[in-house]
Amino acid sequence: MSIAHIGHAELLVPDLDASVSYFRDLVGLRVTETVGDRVFLRAWQDWDHHTLVLTDSPEPGLRHMGWRVKTKADAEQIHAAITERGVESTWTAGSDEVGHGDALRFLTPGGLPFELYWEVQKHVPPPEDASKLPSHPSRVSIQGAAVRRFDHVTFIVDDVVAEQEFLTNALGIRHNYFIHGPDGGRWGSWLSCNNVSHETALTRNAHQDGGKLHHIAYYVDSVDEVARAATLLIDHGYELEWGPGKHGTSGATFLYFREPGGNRVEIWTGGLLIFDPDWEAIDWSKHVGHLGNSLWGTPMPETFRDGTSLPKTVVTA
Amino acid sequence: MSIAHIGHAELLVPDLDASVSYFRDLVGLRVTETVGDRVFLRAWQDWDHHTLVLTDSPEPGLRHMGWRVKTKADAEQIHAAITERGVESTWTAGSDEVGHGDALRFLTPGGLPFELYWEVQKHVPPPEDASKLPSHPSRVSIQGAAVRRFDHVTFIVDDVVAEQEFLTNALGIRHNYFIHGPDGGRWGSWLSCNNVSHETALTRNAHQDGGKLHHIAYYVDSVDEVARAATLLIDHGYELEWGPGKHGTSGATFLYFREPGGNRVEIWTGGLLIFDPDWEAIDWSKHVGHLGNSLWGTPMPETFRDGTSLPKTVVTA
Amino acid sequence: MSIAHIGHAELLVPDLDASVSYFRDLVGLRVTETVGDRVFLRAWQDWDHHTLVLTDSPEPGLRHMGWRVKTKADAEQIHAAITERGVESTWTAGSDEVGHGDALRFLTPGGLPFELYWEVQKHVPPPEDASKLPSHPSRVSIQGAAVRRFDHVTFIVDDVVAEQEFLTNALGIRHNYFIHGPDGGRWGSWLSCNNVSHETALTRNAHQDGGKLHHIAYYVDSVDEVARAATLLIDHGYELEWGPGKHGTSGATFLYFREPGGNRVEIWTGGLLIFDPDWEAIDWSKHVGHLGNSLWGTPMPETFRDGTSLPKTVVTA
Amino acid sequence: MSIAHIGHAELLVPDLDASVSYFRDLVGLRVTETVGDRVFLRAWQDWDHHTLVLTDSPEPGLRHMGWRVKTKADAEQIHAAITERGVESTWTAGSDEVGHGDALRFLTPGGLPFELYWEVQKHVPPPEDASKLPSHPSRVSIQGAAVRRFDHVTFIVDDVVAEQEFLTNALGIRHNYFIHGPDGGRWGSWLSCNNVSHETALTRNAHQDGGKLHHIAYYVDSVDEVARAATLLIDHGYELEWGPGKHGTSGATFLYFREPGGNRVEIWTGGLLIFDPDWEAIDWSKHVGHLGNSLWGTPMPETFRDGTSLPKTVVTA
Repeated sequence: MSIAHIGHAELLVPDLDASVSYFRDLVGLRVTETVGDRVFLRAWQDWDHHTLVLTDSPEPGLRHMGWRVKTKADAEQIHAAITERGVESTWTAGSDEVGHGDALRFLTPGGLPFELYWEVQKHVPPPEDASKLPSHPSRVSIQGAAVRRFDHVTFIVDDVVAEQEFLTNALGIRHNYFIHGPDGGRWGSWLSCNNVSHETALTRNAHQDGGKLHHIAYYVDSVDEVARAATLLIDHGYELEWGPGKHGTSGATFLYFREPGGNRVEIWTGGLLIFDPDWEAIDWSKHVGHLGNSLWGTPMPETFRDGTSLPKTVVTA
Repeated sequence: MSIAHIGHAELLVPDLDASVSYFRDLVGLRVTETVGDRVFLRAWQDWDHHTLVLTDSPEPGLRHMGWRVKTKADAEQIHAAITERGVESTWTAGSDEVGHGDALRFLTPGGLPFELYWEVQKHVPPPEDASKLPSHPSRVSIQGAAVRRFDHVTFIVDDVVAEQEFLTNALGIRHNYFIHGPDGGRWGSWLSCNNVSHETALTRNAHQDGGKLHHIAYYVDSVDEVARAATLLIDHGYELEWGPGKHGTSGATFLYFREPGGNRVEIWTGGLLIFDPDWEAIDWSKHVGHLGNSLWGTPMPETFRDGTSLPKTVVTA
Repeated sequence: MSIAHIGHAELLVPDLDASVSYFRDLVGLRVTETVGDRVFLRAWQDWDHHTLVLTDSPEPGLRHMGWRVKTKADAEQIHAAITERGVESTWTAGSDEVGHGDALRFLTPGGLPFELYWEVQKHVPPPEDASKLPSHPSRVSIQGAAVRRFDHVTFIVDDVVAEQEFLTNALGIRHNYFIHGPDGGRWGSWLSCNNVSHETALTRNAHQDGGKLHHIAYYVDSVDEVARAATLLIDHGYELEWGPGKHGTSGATFLYFREPGGNRVEIWTGGLLIFDPDWEAIDWSKHVGHLGNSLWGTPMPETFRDGTSLPKTVVTA
Repeated sequence: MSIAHIGHAELLVPDLDASVSYFRDLVGLRVTETVGDRVFLRAWQDWDHHTLVLTDSPEPGLRHMGWRVKTKADAEQIHAAITERGVESTWTAGSDEVGHGDALRFLTPGGLPFELYWEVQKHVPPPEDASKLPSHPSRVSIQGAAVRRFDHVTFIVDDVVAEQEFLTNALGIRHNYFIHGPDGGRWGSWLSCNNVSHETALTRNAHQDGGKLHHIAYYVDSVDEVARAATLLIDHGYELEWGPGKHGTSGATFLYFREPGGNRVEIWTGGLLIFDPDWEAIDWSKHVGHLGNSLWGTPMPETFRDGTSLPKTVVTA
């Protein structure tokens, strides 16, 4: 029972052209394919058909978060585990989404729309974007922040502990570290199925209005590139929401901003890798938790804890 | 009539050992020489005997700021210009300071203790620190932030306009850009004698308690190195005061902190160079001034505008 | 049956003081403990007691390479797998080495001295090196290249294919990519048990004089840091062997040099991570293999293919 | 008598579209204006109308190198100095080139086509490229290597000593450092009118076939960006000629390549600044000259010393 890695996020955006331009020209993603009112994108070293879907919609928000499992058997095991916990799910025969096969879809207890799939379509670049290097599924990006790959996804939920336990116990995602707020309550948990510091994270919704996308993150190679991205965004008319700054927890350097539709995006680099097979989740007590959040001391904006500032989760059939 | 470049700052520090350790082990300067209660230091590519003097003293503060002029004739021209403006000065035959020759000392109208000198002693490294490269006056530092060279010095003064005009008209230091506060008043001016964005700057003392050192700055080569310095300092028990962040004015990436004695130090990189012979000082109006101060949006701490938070200027005979 | 991660290398060095100084002052490792003629070191974010052992010896070379397995059961499974392949091994009750418990030791078919162990002693920093951050097993290094963690180990062997198949089939280490020389033969294979591009690699010994250590590698965070390390080493009297350069295969930026005893060390950054559960080893054919080795075109030195230029493997009881 | 700074280079290119695409999409310059068969370009922080002119021509080569002087009086002083040395020159009333006013044109003794001008047209960005920051004459580039500014120009000449003395004595360009080849002869000289390590350089033509453009260079902000540029170029089908590497002389990190027309271009960062008013040109003797050329040891390609591998200088009326 295990998830292989995060796959892709489908974001709803009210101005599709604006959001596509933003991700393509400034973030540096490439458009793989456009199908109706949906545009499929990926970073230059993402191997699969897409890691981001932008879908035209009156309201912004997360429509679904896709996770790759190795085989259908893995999905079946997870199906049993979530069913046992009273979570309803749907097997979709075929998918409305290009790029992968059948899927299992469900809403987590915290209200997050997850999808598991096991067959993927690898990216085949058009000739003009094919690299001589077999390690490059397409040429390195020459556009904007030129991010390398999809890295992680973070959610805001009402109950961090309950949702983390669901992810760990039902989906098999290891709990890597957690943080306490000044009130001593759990404010955040970071998890992964593999060596990265986190493929997903949960942060506490101070306004308790349900589970939502907190942000999706793409990876760049250095602090230098994060800083460059910050300046690019500002000089092209966008606002930063937080950063560049450094998380003490992962050691990563971060930059958060909103795409034109209002969904939050992060560009980051440098999180630690976890190799220890006996890893126990690091407890960032309230005494040092602020260093975990913001090593350099820039305060986290209130919007990071306030679910009402975030687009809704929109679950469709 | 022109100043060639900034030379060195003499800082008073109440715990000499602590300050020396800090600059040597964390900032990465090298001690050139110790004479009595004064320690002379330099960065690895500083060509002269020293760029920093740390002097034992009950109270922290700036004792003097040294400026190199090309010849004694340049000092004499400046002597005439400041005398004409009613500024008293003293020719010191010889100096209590090793590393340079005779000097002209005076207090600017804003209360800053300046020294001009024209004969310098080049740094001669001890054999174990001699580099094979003639472009390296000593080996590159393997210690701490490993800063490359002394870069600039900033002051806080009561009247930015008056002091800037003195520096420009009497000392010949070009005015490169200036910033207005929300009240429309001049809050800062940046100046240089050469191509760098500023060798000195003046910032308004909101509390009007006189001219003081705002900070001295050493140069590193990249944003990556500034970020690394920030983490080094925090992890070794020190606090950052502001940054890492980016000034829109110069385009430089900055990091401010206090050395153990309380004097403020900056590590920075990347300021623009000015080549235009017709350069007119850029006016950062109040509408965009905040982008000039802090492009990424981290607010400048109040201590940056409050002279009472800064060590005093101590002028001795 | 699986190895958790690489653990540590024991290098024999003829001038122990010189090698310790080198790794400590220039590479930026910390000494954990000294026991007799052995010095134990680690990088600042290595969690275990040590990742490098330097042992005084008349001749330089590799004495053993330690691999962490999760439990004794994993070691027993591997024991069965290697025994089936005719490889003799020894269970050591206790170890002559501080920092871990019992071990299984054996020589691979290619002649590499491997050790598996399952109980480890975590690093406990002395108070003056303890960080406030629970993600830092010790404070970030302020010394030299200040490497972050032990990354990988590469060997030179007579038969790359046979040794790779042993590592994959008997030890369970996934084959990630391989390279062909101009003669069409397999010149190199890169493998890992986890998401990193390689934890170990095999390169062909053109002189067919047996299996030896090719190099050990420590990780830094950016190309900037690799470049800084190069300049540090040169300016402090050492020679680079190859680099800074870039491998197309992993996308990593590299720098190779010899420590004073003659063992080769690499400082590197940025290798790709592999998440795909269906990953098939990438075949770098002879047509593009040179881009895999050296993307920027700096030719690989002949010493990289010539086992006679490398210290011997010394296997002791 | 002094030159203010380098201004612009006019390169002849046989396939104008290909060269324009290259500089725009990969190097990251912006097209300011197209006039007939000439395209004018600049980097994002170049303040003037252009720093590069690409002109359609059957053969590639340098047509002229423009230098800014402060006033016409400066041009007149230089006119007297070169006339005294037997160099013929032409005052052009108006110019066939947009972006600046009248000019003085001449061929140096070494055969280099120079132009001096004193009136410049500042760049006025189109609205969609205007930055909110008055320090940005246009928005930061989001394209390719996104170079910051025109940095320097290097020539290959038959007699380095004679040409350096002309530049220093007749044009007032300070000699900063020089290098000797293994034969003890002067192989290179680097000069500037200001604080940068060099705005122009001369390198010896081993084949003695006259003065030509060796390369033009644009500045980026970090080693990280140089490395990124290298990978961009390779992955988009171009070859590197030398680098990334490091010059010991200036301390800069370099990358050389040819634009589609065959003219050589450099992307570089980090050269030292020279502030000392008594600076004496550093002598890189033959013993350490190789460290000056190539600190990391990558050998300089033969094409760097061979004028026959370079496009011709084409001087038109």
